[in-house]
Amino acid sequence: MDLTLAPPPASSPALAASLAERYLGVRAFTEYLCEPLATEDFVVQTSEDVSPTKWHLAHTTWFWETFVLREHAAGYRPFDERYAYLFNSYYVQAGERHCRDQRGYLSRPTVADVFAYRAHVDAAMGGLLGSARHADALREIVEVGLHHEQQHQELMLTDIKHVFSVNPLRPVYRSAERPRGAIPAAGWKAFEGGVREIGHAGGGFCFDNETPRHRVYVEPFALGTRLVTCGEFEAFIRDGGYRRAELWLSLGWAAVQAKAWAEPFYWERPSGDGPSGDGAGGDGASAPGSYRHYTLAGLEPVDPDEPVTHVTYFEADAYARWAGARLPTEAEWEVAAATVPLDGPFADAGLLHPSRADGEPGTLAQMYGDVWQWTRSQYEPYPGYTPAPGALGEYNGKFMCNQFVLRGASCATSRSHARATYRNFFPPDAAWQFTGIRLAKDA
Amino acid sequence: MDLTLAPPPASSPALAASLAERYLGVRAFTEYLCEPLATEDFVVQTSEDVSPTKWHLAHTTWFWETFVLREHAAGYRPFDERYAYLFNSYYVQAGERHCRDQRGYLSRPTVADVFAYRAHVDAAMGGLLGSARHADALREIVEVGLHHEQQHQELMLTDIKHVFSVNPLRPVYRSAERPRGAIPAAGWKAFEGGVREIGHAGGGFCFDNETPRHRVYVEPFALGTRLVTCGEFEAFIRDGGYRRAELWLSLGWAAVQAKAWAEPFYWERPSGDGPSGDGAGGDGASAPGSYRHYTLAGLEPVDPDEPVTHVTYFEADAYARWAGARLPTEAEWEVAAATVPLDGPFADAGLLHPSRADGEPGTLAQMYGDVWQWTRSQYEPYPGYTPAPGALGEYNGKFMCNQFVLRGASCATSRSHARATYRNFFPPDAAWQFTGIRLAKDA
Amino acid sequence: MDLTLAPPPASSPALAASLAERYLGVRAFTEYLCEPLATEDFVVQTSEDVSPTKWHLAHTTWFWETFVLREHAAGYRPFDERYAYLFNSYYVQAGERHCRDQRGYLSRPTVADVFAYRAHVDAAMGGLLGSARHADALREIVEVGLHHEQQHQELMLTDIKHVFSVNPLRPVYRSAERPRGAIPAAGWKAFEGGVREIGHAGGGFCFDNETPRHRVYVEPFALGTRLVTCGEFEAFIRDGGYRRAELWLSLGWAAVQAKAWAEPFYWERPSGDGPSGDGAGGDGASAPGSYRHYTLAGLEPVDPDEPVTHVTYFEADAYARWAGARLPTEAEWEVAAATVPLDGPFADAGLLHPSRADGEPGTLAQMYGDVWQWTRSQYEPYPGYTPAPGALGEYNGKFMCNQFVLRGASCATSRSHARATYRNFFPPDAAWQFTGIRLAKDA
Amino acid sequence: MDLTLAPPPASSPALAASLAERYLGVRAFTEYLCEPLATEDFVVQTSEDVSPTKWHLAHTTWFWETFVLREHAAGYRPFDERYAYLFNSYYVQAGERHCRDQRGYLSRPTVADVFAYRAHVDAAMGGLLGSARHADALREIVEVGLHHEQQHQELMLTDIKHVFSVNPLRPVYRSAERPRGAIPAAGWKAFEGGVREIGHAGGGFCFDNETPRHRVYVEPFALGTRLVTCGEFEAFIRDGGYRRAELWLSLGWAAVQAKAWAEPFYWERPSGDGPSGDGAGGDGASAPGSYRHYTLAGLEPVDPDEPVTHVTYFEADAYARWAGARLPTEAEWEVAAATVPLDGPFADAGLLHPSRADGEPGTLAQMYGDVWQWTRSQYEPYPGYTPAPGALGEYNGKFMCNQFVLRGASCATSRSHARATYRNFFPPDAAWQFTGIRLAKDA
Repeated sequence: MDLTLAPPPASSPALAASLAERYLGVRAFTEYLCEPLATEDFVVQTSEDVSPTKWHLAHTTWFWETFVLREHAAGYRPFDERYAYLFNSYYVQAGERHCRDQRGYLSRPTVADVFAYRAHVDAAMGGLLGSARHADALREIVEVGLHHEQQHQELMLTDIKHVFSVNPLRPVYRSAERPRGAIPAAGWKAFEGGVREIGHAGGGFCFDNETPRHRVYVEPFALGTRLVTCGEFEAFIRDGGYRRAELWLSLGWAAVQAKAWAEPFYWERPSGDGPSGDGAGGDGASAPGSYRHYTLAGLEPVDPDEPVTHVTYFEADAYARWAGARLPTEAEWEVAAATVPLDGPFADAGLLHPSRADGEPGTLAQMYGDVWQWTRSQYEPYPGYTPAPGALGEYNGKFMCNQFVLRGASCATSRSHARATYRNFFPPDAAWQFTGIRLAKDA
Repeated sequence: MDLTLAPPPASSPALAASLAERYLGVRAFTEYLCEPLATEDFVVQTSEDVSPTKWHLAHTTWFWETFVLREHAAGYRPFDERYAYLFNSYYVQAGERHCRDQRGYLSRPTVADVFAYRAHVDAAMGGLLGSARHADALREIVEVGLHHEQQHQELMLTDIKHVFSVNPLRPVYRSAERPRGAIPAAGWKAFEGGVREIGHAGGGFCFDNETPRHRVYVEPFALGTRLVTCGEFEAFIRDGGYRRAELWLSLGWAAVQAKAWAEPFYWERPSGDGPSGDGAGGDGASAPGSYRHYTLAGLEPVDPDEPVTHVTYFEADAYARWAGARLPTEAEWEVAAATVPLDGPFADAGLLHPSRADGEPGTLAQMYGDVWQWTRSQYEPYPGYTPAPGALGEYNGKFMCNQFVLRGASCATSRSHARATYRNFFPPDAAWQFTGIRLAKDA
Repeated sequence: MDLTLAPPPASSPALAASLAERYLGVRAFTEYLCEPLATEDFVVQTSEDVSPTKWHLAHTTWFWETFVLREHAAGYRPFDERYAYLFNSYYVQAGERHCRDQRGYLSRPTVADVFAYRAHVDAAMGGLLGSARHADALREIVEVGLHHEQQHQELMLTDIKHVFSVNPLRPVYRSAERPRGAIPAAGWKAFEGGVREIGHAGGGFCFDNETPRHRVYVEPFALGTRLVTCGEFEAFIRDGGYRRAELWLSLGWAAVQAKAWAEPFYWERPSGDGPSGDGAGGDGASAPGSYRHYTLAGLEPVDPDEPVTHVTYFEADAYARWAGARLPTEAEWEVAAATVPLDGPFADAGLLHPSRADGEPGTLAQMYGDVWQWTRSQYEPYPGYTPAPGALGEYNGKFMCNQFVLRGASCATSRSHARATYRNFFPPDAAWQFTGIRLAKDA
Repeated sequence: MDLTLAPPPASSPALAASLAERYLGVRAFTEYLCEPLATEDFVVQTSEDVSPTKWHLAHTTWFWETFVLREHAAGYRPFDERYAYLFNSYYVQAGERHCRDQRGYLSRPTVADVFAYRAHVDAAMGGLLGSARHADALREIVEVGLHHEQQHQELMLTDIKHVFSVNPLRPVYRSAERPRGAIPAAGWKAFEGGVREIGHAGGGFCFDNETPRHRVYVEPFALGTRLVTCGEFEAFIRDGGYRRAELWLSLGWAAVQAKAWAEPFYWERPSGDGPSGDGAGGDGASAPGSYRHYTLAGLEPVDPDEPVTHVTYFEADAYARWAGARLPTEAEWEVAAATVPLDGPFADAGLLHPSRADGEPGTLAQMYGDVWQWTRSQYEPYPGYTPAPGALGEYNGKFMCNQFVLRGASCATSRSHARATYRNFFPPDAAWQFTGIRLAKDA
């Protein structure tokens, strides 16, 4: 992994303390996220995208065991040799692995077994990180492991949301008070064109796909000052957005028809309003404000002033076309993001749902937290990009095909995991993440 | 349900005691079957055929609640109104129901919730059955409910076997000592032809599909005196049985090729022996005795003297053709079964695996217990058959298409659930039940 | 093939003349059926069930070449060795063959090539059949070949009907005047029960699946005196037949939902009447008499007095249940058919569409011609059945699974191909043949 | 369609002559391509990618009728109103259309009907183009129509290649002598980095996706001086290229496994060499030089010195990784192409197969003709891109998702259709076009 790192702390003991402390913090947050769950909730897999919570707990632990303890901890005894097969995700070079779509078939090891596995690995990691002489050598891989576990924390939240949403009992994960203030009017913030630099350059951790920092030529552009809201998206629905082929990419329109999309994922019409996709009633949409959606706090009315979320790329793209705008490129997004501080309602805030915008009209808001923002950029290597050698090199490069880049971070991302150069990516029909829409236009 | 019943006991109090006692016994046996399971084991669904144990526990309880308590128990308060939707199986007339292939998506209600549901219903049933004045009116539906729950007990065993078998950790459900005596040589038992009667006629419970008792014309025939063994089936494999199209029904051969069948379900080749379906080594089969198979007692070497089990109809039919014989018709089987006592190693014996035959050569053995025996008869209504009115009439008749009849009972069937006229049925590619082979021939 | 044959004619030359004459007649009828077709029409395959006309022309010719000329004609030179691979249908023992679902991918050999192939084979057959010394040896296989080609004549008609029906231009194959007289009222004809004999016994050709003739026990029953009409079937539709689960077999109901069946195959609603399966208008059905259907004479209004055709087994079974009746068993059908002459509007009559019934009320009408009649009997071997040795033994036995027997013959069957013991069979969801409904009931 | 056009000729009559002449030339070339075909060859569709020749003939004609004659020719009478439905391809705004995957189901209209349709439209076009007063108004749409028909000419060749290739008779389309000289060694040609311009700017026709011309920042790079050859690609196969997951994109590796890819599309192993994907023999590859492939001149031995063709993006990408290089971006390709003349073996040369390279080592060869060259660039809009209004705007923009750009032109492209800014695009698993590989690297 081609990481450009900040200068190391002056002394190794300090570094060791810092790494050990961060390790404990990240690991504890993973287990904090499990607190609302019953044993049964850890087991279930409700789609191929979703993994059981138990699997996330074990896979993140397998990562530490495989890439840190087996490599660096003399005399380390693996907890159970069979877990290497069960809890590898997609690292071909790390050996055979259990089928992704059968993770929900595993009742054993039990949840208690997996927590014991975590404790076993945490103890060994504690010993290793507590020893100053290892700290320098380990720093890089431990950084990777921490960010890897933070990625899985986000997936744990989005996956349990899916598990609970398909359950007719609609369990509540965690309730939270969300701000309900008035939001600023939508506006545009303009940026000049020219040769710019994007990508990661020194100062902290990044994944290899953010490098190298390089020049791009950007035409003048403007970004929407805040995210698109549910109310704005409802206007698109009411205007026949899901029934007008000319608004959609060809593959998107095929998906609309094949899957009978008629509103964002997790949205529900009031009962008696006809099945999704049914055109009865003229415009195929419900009355304004009548939608509900499943949230981690349970089933709720859709708040028209909240950012719309769980939209696919296809929906984001169609919405933008309908609105007479377009989605930003990732270069545009990053150039703009460099002008604002890294701040927002992250997972640490505990809202676990996007929040209404606040701030002055005309200023660039909601760049982080809330929702990942679809860009129109397909996921490609930066010029000069080289994947890391070994199994960790499988982390990013091999997915550079048929995916779109998302920027920012969501309400399920930890603050310490977010940065301006972060390149998230999903296929254009994915909606189970907290994904949303920021508009752009040529200036 | 068109039941022909034995004369009732002389007095209702006696009947009430008997029904209540049997109710308690059957319900307790269901929970006894759960004892080896961890909480996680109750949740998992590993194929569309398989249901989670939790679902079986709740569905059998829903049956009592729906067809007995809601109908007959004045003032009964349902445990949770939403369970009607969650735990209906296929009774269209009993309302909407949750998708069968998504039973494994439900982490809630929890296992503890479901046991509480059982306790709630058991308490109400206790009150109802304890009251002598209800006994006569309830007897019929209670009989149905008891046999229904016994059917699900058998499914609980075959389903948990599947769940554990796909788990790379290969958990053991329960260990048991099985008899290992010498088996009698295979032989034939001849029966004369003529007009015979089959079907249920008075004296105890039966399902509607066993009625009416009626005449059939049977040609002279002979049945194999014992079940086909694993060793005999291995000879079929070594003779290229899975690679010779002429031995198979057309749909069976298509299944062999599409699914690369090369041995019975749950059988495994020794590692290094090549993938299933690979012809390397000439005959495509492993050395005699080298197969292992998953059993409820864990992974074991295949015992050549045991009855072969978990074979599809297609495999049973191909084996019989290879052996120069055929499968029996259900009329032949029932005519023969009428000559032997209803006895065998049932679920109550706790072996949960078919046993080696014993007894004298030439006598008809292994007619009950061990394995269900595929007949060549497709599942059709008896002449004059009429389904019961209402939701219970959906129990049998609507499945009379593309299924084959199996006779006898298996090592997972309760003794009190078996009888000579029982018509079990499964599609010709089903193998997750304890299904086996008895040969027949024209005499 | 286990054929019970009539006594041979006194002298071989007479037999040779008869065989040669019949050969020429059957072959000429095949080519007569091609007259309305353009070259392009011979090539197209519109579903896996359908074969291109060109394929039928070549496959029937391959049959003569493979089973007669190669075996019996000394010095016969095959027309093109590659045709053995291209035009084998499913005879595994006759070698590898081209994929069934890719028959429409073959533009070559051209239609002209295939007619040249026919001429080549006809010339060789003429020589062979003209020689008296071969006639006795060949008689059996020539009989099979003639009936084989007659089966394909029927398929040519049903397949070209499908090809034309999916073409938005709706070409006409052949027009014909059909009788339009008043039909007798529906009634019942009763038959006594007891031991009866069915199956073929001497006197002319039969396929092996019609043997041996054997005893069956039949309960008293009655058959509907004529076929169910389109008007009667429309009443079923208007009564919600396609929306009432309780009328359907479980697999049938699944098919109704998955394929949105709302009327028989080839029926069309008037435009503006909503898509099939749409419930708008209350009963989900069109106004009486408003349906049209594609026929070999083009798109026509549905005649309420004609027999309904192109119904699946599932629809026939559901209709019978709705009508308070059931479908006959094949034994019942054959017992009844033995009481009437073999007569009806066959393919030779050139109507190519089922006709209105005529005759006296109370007499058994429409037993042959018009439509094949679904029975409730699944396709099983008769007691004592043995398939023929060699490739011809693959003709019937290997399909005895998941198919239902149809009796009678249709308007696309040649008169000389029909007989009372004929067992036709198709899967329960097949509708592209001329299939219809005769009711039965217990008497 | 946002076309930047060259200055018009001085007088309209001259323009009219030129347009009419070019129209006649392009239309005649379409029909010239049909000369080797039998009537049956026009009808067949062998995959969803492939269209029947008859459809191409009619669809290109429909284009003229719909966008020129109906709009501009007063009193034009359409040949057959039903053709608008049958022969629209994907222009949603031009109305409903027949299913793409059922184009092979249409035997009617016949080939003769379609040629009559062409003659009808050609006559009307002749009248229209012959009139000087229309020429200026029509020029733009006629240019589009000509290039549209040239695109379909290329598809006619690649589609008939597929049709013939799946036919076991392996018909020859047209034979041709191909040059067999020695090829230059592979080398690199370096280019400097900096701000460059790409995209179309004035002077002749282009599609809207080539506009606007715009600045990009390009890092220093080098291109391979010639295309990758079959011999070089065989070395990749022998080195286990199709069995080494680390060489492939994740989706590419999934395709390799799901479809058992083991060599390029149309390549065949010598018989006896085992099935594709079988590892027997150690390296899973055939002996050097032993492959054959289907060409428009029939089945031929693979020439190791020819450019490899019919490779997917996944294979091109894996090959480049194996070779220690990468694929070019489209900007790099266009910057390089600007330095060489537009020349090469196009369809007009009649070879219909890629040719061996010639020329001096170190010079950039084979940039046009031979094969389309996969770039690593996913198909995205250029900055400032706007689709044309109306149905023609559906030509390009709606496909900008999950496709990769190819540059150059192939041996099936007409010379007058090729240009340096042309952006062809296909999904990464497409191989039925003449697609090949040019390497690139960072300089």
